[in-house]
Amino acid sequence: MSESQNLGLNPNVSVDCVVFGFDKAGLKVLLIERDNPDNTEGKNYQLPGDLIRNDEDLDEAANRVLKELTNIDNLFLQQFAAFGNPLRVKRENDLEWLRSIRKDPDARVVTIGYYALIKPEDFAPSASSFARKAEWVRYEDVPELAFDHNLILESGLASLKQKMRSEPVGFELLPAKFTLRQLQNLYETVMGVEIDKRNFRRKVQGMKFLVALDEKQKGVAHKPAQLYRFSNNNYKDSFSATFDFA
Amino acid sequence: MSESQNLGLNPNVSVDCVVFGFDKAGLKVLLIERDNPDNTEGKNYQLPGDLIRNDEDLDEAANRVLKELTNIDNLFLQQFAAFGNPLRVKRENDLEWLRSIRKDPDARVVTIGYYALIKPEDFAPSASSFARKAEWVRYEDVPELAFDHNLILESGLASLKQKMRSEPVGFELLPAKFTLRQLQNLYETVMGVEIDKRNFRRKVQGMKFLVALDEKQKGVAHKPAQLYRFSNNNYKDSFSATFDFA
Repeated sequence: MSESQNLGLNPNVSVDCVVFGFDKAGLKVLLIERDNPDNTEGKNYQLPGDLIRNDEDLDEAANRVLKELTNIDNLFLQQFAAFGNPLRVKRENDLEWLRSIRKDPDARVVTIGYYALIKPEDFAPSASSFARKAEWVRYEDVPELAFDHNLILESGLASLKQKMRSEPVGFELLPAKFTLRQLQNLYETVMGVEIDKRNFRRKVQGMKFLVALDEKQKGVAHKPAQLYRFSNNNYKDSFSATFDFA
Repeated sequence: MSESQNLGLNPNVSVDCVVFGFDKAGLKVLLIERDNPDNTEGKNYQLPGDLIRNDEDLDEAANRVLKELTNIDNLFLQQFAAFGNPLRVKRENDLEWLRSIRKDPDARVVTIGYYALIKPEDFAPSASSFARKAEWVRYEDVPELAFDHNLILESGLASLKQKMRSEPVGFELLPAKFTLRQLQNLYETVMGVEIDKRNFRRKVQGMKFLVALDEKQKGVAHKPAQLYRFSNNNYKDSFSATFDFA
């Protein structure tokens, strides 16, 4: 086995990418529809993912697979968890498809999950390889996915939320100068909660990494709002999480 | 391949356990020495780890492997990362040992890392399977380990520290009633930093989940210190990390 295996894809390890997009329309997820002519009964949507090659690192595999299936490249993909339920690729609908595409469709596959958060407008996916569609789907509209991909998606979102609670994630999705309303909208959308405006503004007051600019919005119909910027220097100086005693 | 593979160990996926111990002597790590009579030139210490079985979940595998090698059972092992450098099991010293023990010693192996933090006094390891020793080693004294296990150890420690900064990890390693000195010692030891006593006490004042008891130490030679307990209820009410706007 090892000789042939060394040259190609590893039958037992895959990567799956949960690429989140945030824009005015809300939170989106990048999905592919797999090319599966014999099976048109749904459950053909999935996360972009595939087996790793025996000569590549996991991070490298995640980037390659995403590019092969969606033509999206050069993302910072963050590894977040491994998924290894022994039955995760054993659903009949999935096996049927695997038999049409893989050498060893019955092999046990452990998959490593990666996530990224990007601006969908900067990355237009186009399908290739075994994907016949690659598209942004609103998070609320995500259908039942192949394999355990709904679980992987939820786990990726939980990891993103966790990171967002403790690190300044997502500021790069806002304009360089943003309003507190825009910031609140970003947090509400990704965290999936409504935040009381007063509470939000009170907390923001204590955050030295949010710098109020001597500048207001222009060309808006409503009363122009104060603009802010994110200061990475102030962030580095001020950071202290709940249990950070030092 | 799939038939025989389904019955036994998966050649391409393993788990490795980073079990940390904390006690008065400091931070320790549970290591095994592998049974390798032909190779006595060092690098025979490693983390407890082995290939997964094709019929078991990853968490299950981590617990089984730890028990098989060290006879330590029933830990809460937390998955923290997957390691997949294509060359991670290709060092000559390691290959030699793999050839003596594995069916397919040249196979690419991706490993899933797990960690736990426990009281070493509650868990006395004893070696079995391919381990000829299983023992607690002071973190400062950890030698060069087999494979990429030094990397996995450091990564596991980084994950533990990260968790400790945002969640009440480790209180179960202290007595139910503890002094601030004991708490500071726990944080200093795991985080690997010295904390200014005044800063520490000032921060502690704001933490409602630390409840001062109407009780002091007994039977100590020095001036008895105030005792505290951890309140999980207060913790749940009060928790808010830096970016927790809600």
